[in-house]
Amino acid sequence: VRGAPLIGIAAAYGLALAAVHCDGHDLKALRQCLRDAGETLRATRPTAVNLAWALDRVLRAVSSASTFGEGVAIAVRTARTIHEEDIEGNRRIGRLGAALLRPGARVMTHCNAGALATGGYGTALGVLAAAHEEGALQHVHVNETRPLLQGARLTAWELRESGVPFTLEPDSAAGLTMRRGLVDAVITGADRIAANGDAANKIGTYQLAVLAHANGIPFYIAAPTSTIDLAAATGDDIPIEERSPDEVLCVRGTRIAPEGVLVSNPAFDVTPAELIDAIITENGVARPPYERTLAEACHQGVPAHG
Amino acid sequence: VRGAPLIGIAAAYGLALAAVHCDGHDLKALRQCLRDAGETLRATRPTAVNLAWALDRVLRAVSSASTFGEGVAIAVRTARTIHEEDIEGNRRIGRLGAALLRPGARVMTHCNAGALATGGYGTALGVLAAAHEEGALQHVHVNETRPLLQGARLTAWELRESGVPFTLEPDSAAGLTMRRGLVDAVITGADRIAANGDAANKIGTYQLAVLAHANGIPFYIAAPTSTIDLAAATGDDIPIEERSPDEVLCVRGTRIAPEGVLVSNPAFDVTPAELIDAIITENGVARPPYERTLAEACHQGVPAHG
Repeated sequence: VRGAPLIGIAAAYGLALAAVHCDGHDLKALRQCLRDAGETLRATRPTAVNLAWALDRVLRAVSSASTFGEGVAIAVRTARTIHEEDIEGNRRIGRLGAALLRPGARVMTHCNAGALATGGYGTALGVLAAAHEEGALQHVHVNETRPLLQGARLTAWELRESGVPFTLEPDSAAGLTMRRGLVDAVITGADRIAANGDAANKIGTYQLAVLAHANGIPFYIAAPTSTIDLAAATGDDIPIEERSPDEVLCVRGTRIAPEGVLVSNPAFDVTPAELIDAIITENGVARPPYERTLAEACHQGVPAHG
Repeated sequence: VRGAPLIGIAAAYGLALAAVHCDGHDLKALRQCLRDAGETLRATRPTAVNLAWALDRVLRAVSSASTFGEGVAIAVRTARTIHEEDIEGNRRIGRLGAALLRPGARVMTHCNAGALATGGYGTALGVLAAAHEEGALQHVHVNETRPLLQGARLTAWELRESGVPFTLEPDSAAGLTMRRGLVDAVITGADRIAANGDAANKIGTYQLAVLAHANGIPFYIAAPTSTIDLAAATGDDIPIEERSPDEVLCVRGTRIAPEGVLVSNPAFDVTPAELIDAIITENGVARPPYERTLAEACHQGVPAHG
């Protein structure tokens, strides 16, 4: 499972499954089952805050149960609600984001923030889907997104299935494509957004934002409020996952470098808020100063106990 | 054959071979053989100017011959001279470039500008080799350099063989590595440098220069004067080779994207002169204004007719 929103949804369903399969009959046993499953799930990935957000939401909802059976039902219902709300929220993000693009827009995106990364519609790709439906999208530039090639494998597939015109490009061609005047906007998803607007997303996002800035191109992030972590003051508070060297040394099972080579493989980077023109959430388009606008977007949200 | 200096050397040897194998006995036949071979070789690659430079130098040298045998001998001798001068020039580039690095320097490089791209020593990697010999180099960050992975396949191999400490990183991690404060200088080679200092090099170089600038890190180019094209006023006069989509769609024979996907695969980009802190040539370190300093470096060079 990958994609911050989908990680959250999968974690919620994970707790629901733990509840359904819990070997016990009273609330104490159910709470123990959910605590154990929650700890296991929480430790799987450090960067995407949607994981902790979804777990906490299910656990909090279940805490209001007065019987074992009610607790199980609440866990399942809350997971389904989280899933449904994500799809609904994505559609709102899509409409709000599409309104930021001028007709005939040519947009660059990175990694995969589409149906395959969410409940089923997409955040950054949701914006592109909405713009395409409105006939406002001319072309998409898809970065292949090494090391795991989510752009080449997933975004290319999603856009092809949707009939959106696009080209696939190596990550290192992004600067030239912008400099050639082929990009009107850059839109990516996010894995965790700090209270000040600093945003962690797939490795390579930071440099796209720098390049967009240098070339006078607006840089947007599209993400649900479940990706905003108001407890993280700035990007410095966001842990960056370092992943296996094998992801870099081998491409789809084929070795690409000599033996005995050290690798750095950070899975995410943080784009500083000052490089982000807007953050598109289901509760509105947040603009600087993000301290205020992100807090407002979060507090306009659905009640946290679903 | 790849690497601008090595492309030039190989082209010169190509003409020498054409001379040695020329089926004729007089100068007219030799000139025809060399013209035919020259045309074939000239059409192989558009971006690296060393190709045309080496061909022209051999052809000009042979034009002074008064017999068939003398012409063949001059062609062979000139090719050998070009090769030997390149190695010697690389060593001078190495010493001059190493002097720009402070002790304990941590340097990022892109693609391969080493022994495997030149007559046998290297330009950007020549600088790193010289700094390493002097004990001044702490660490090298090697970008893998998609699509053809020259960083992962060639530079990683060269540095490992030389015992230089390095890490291999995806191209999209370069920005984060710089932002983390791990890079004191960026050094790359070049394929063609215009009179104003705009420099074509492997795709991804431009964005490294933008990122270096944004992070207050000096950006250097190391290249022999044979890479400088005073006839190209600016980078706009440098043709950029667009290469096969298969280089992006397949990694070492393994398909990484769905069928029916359009690809953009420019092999080079142009870094504007204002992002380049210095251009290290065998005739000295050129600094802005490059119009003057590059012309000086070229005119201090060895006589063009070897």
